[in-house]
Amino acid sequence: MKRLVLLRHGQSLWNKENRFTGWTDVNLSEQGVAEAKKAGKVLKDEGYQFKIAYTSYLTRAIKTLWLALEEMDQMWIPVKKSWRLNEKHYGMLQGLNKAETAEKYGDDMVHLWRRSFDVPPQPLETDDERNPKFDPRYAELTAAEIPLTESLKEVIERFIPYWESEIMPALKENDDVLVAAHGNSLRALVMHLKNMSKEDILKFNIPTGIPYVFEFDDDMNFVKDYFLGDPEEVKKLMEQVANQAKKK
Amino acid sequence: MKRLVLLRHGQSLWNKENRFTGWTDVNLSEQGVAEAKKAGKVLKDEGYQFKIAYTSYLTRAIKTLWLALEEMDQMWIPVKKSWRLNEKHYGMLQGLNKAETAEKYGDDMVHLWRRSFDVPPQPLETDDERNPKFDPRYAELTAAEIPLTESLKEVIERFIPYWESEIMPALKENDDVLVAAHGNSLRALVMHLKNMSKEDILKFNIPTGIPYVFEFDDDMNFVKDYFLGDPEEVKKLMEQVANQAKKK
Repeated sequence: MKRLVLLRHGQSLWNKENRFTGWTDVNLSEQGVAEAKKAGKVLKDEGYQFKIAYTSYLTRAIKTLWLALEEMDQMWIPVKKSWRLNEKHYGMLQGLNKAETAEKYGDDMVHLWRRSFDVPPQPLETDDERNPKFDPRYAELTAAEIPLTESLKEVIERFIPYWESEIMPALKENDDVLVAAHGNSLRALVMHLKNMSKEDILKFNIPTGIPYVFEFDDDMNFVKDYFLGDPEEVKKLMEQVANQAKKK
Repeated sequence: MKRLVLLRHGQSLWNKENRFTGWTDVNLSEQGVAEAKKAGKVLKDEGYQFKIAYTSYLTRAIKTLWLALEEMDQMWIPVKKSWRLNEKHYGMLQGLNKAETAEKYGDDMVHLWRRSFDVPPQPLETDDERNPKFDPRYAELTAAEIPLTESLKEVIERFIPYWESEIMPALKENDDVLVAAHGNSLRALVMHLKNMSKEDILKFNIPTGIPYVFEFDDDMNFVKDYFLGDPEEVKKLMEQVANQAKKK
């Protein structure tokens, strides 16, 4: 049996301020730090021994991974980082809070950007200081790879090739692999793994700080998925997810 | 110009208790955490932008690196870990404090183990629970590679091949490379880089938490080495080193 564990980072400083973050590099809040440590403790208590871990280029996901690995006494395992695991780029929305956004673009437009599978938010201007080309961490990307905005569809298009070329082969070779990332990059992977519809994935909210396990057999066939943690809390979260799915 | 920065981890929990640590995996003390953050702040203030970092399999070095990278907002850079950067294995001494050690083996023997270039401490028994073969992080090592004790000579023999095959090529390709490791693994590298004698390297004490910079020209010729940080503190440390060298 092989286990892929997905971990969505906890609260960041901008979650607290109700601002769109995307590729903006903000750190975890104190609550986010506590969520990451708790996830590490759960994984340790369940006896997970990871062989390799993956994360994005963004501090809040890396910090979540590091805190969880420290809690597990597994800081020594290889960690691979890729921009392909980054959160969805939110274009011009990045840095705005919801009140500002509704004021600037109107409620209907914001609803479309947040709920559409393939309509991205309004892109950044190329000379906008938020353009990733000005950030040294993205120097390796081609001009075509650098996003000025992204839809969930575009997140899938950049992340799934990395899943297929890097993470899936690692999972084949090792038993337990950990991926610490973001709401929308994990959503892209979950959609792919569970073969979900566009409608279902947009209603599927991965809880923060709760390890989300995908089991595969030795031929890499998907067997089952489940959340780890305090049974009452997990049950509540799973019912939330079930209820969200019922709303379609 | 290319810059290799060596960073020796700060105080660990066992440094505080005056115990031989070696390959024992103890975390940093509060003071050690503060030293790592301070080193990161100094490197940030000096404008260092690393392309890659290296560390050992031991928590106290990894944690030092992570804290420094967080301070620099450079958590996203690739980090490679290797057992070849580990501290010297202290054999049967691991876990003993100095009083216990002197009592058990005698002052002269302990002095020889601590000051000799090629006499290792008494080895662990193969069935000793401290044998690295019982630790999953060393599962990749061959039986011949797993140490039951080490002299500084043996640390050089396992570390320098990694320097030559991994770190030196990375430095050739990139400008600034960071290595966070241990007193004796860094001593092995410094001896190699500065072509120091056995006598001189044993008297050379790398200060903890002070970034130690080696500059190379584009043909990888060693140009000069210096410590970074508060000028008064660095001057004091350099005088200490100079005085140690005068004692021969």
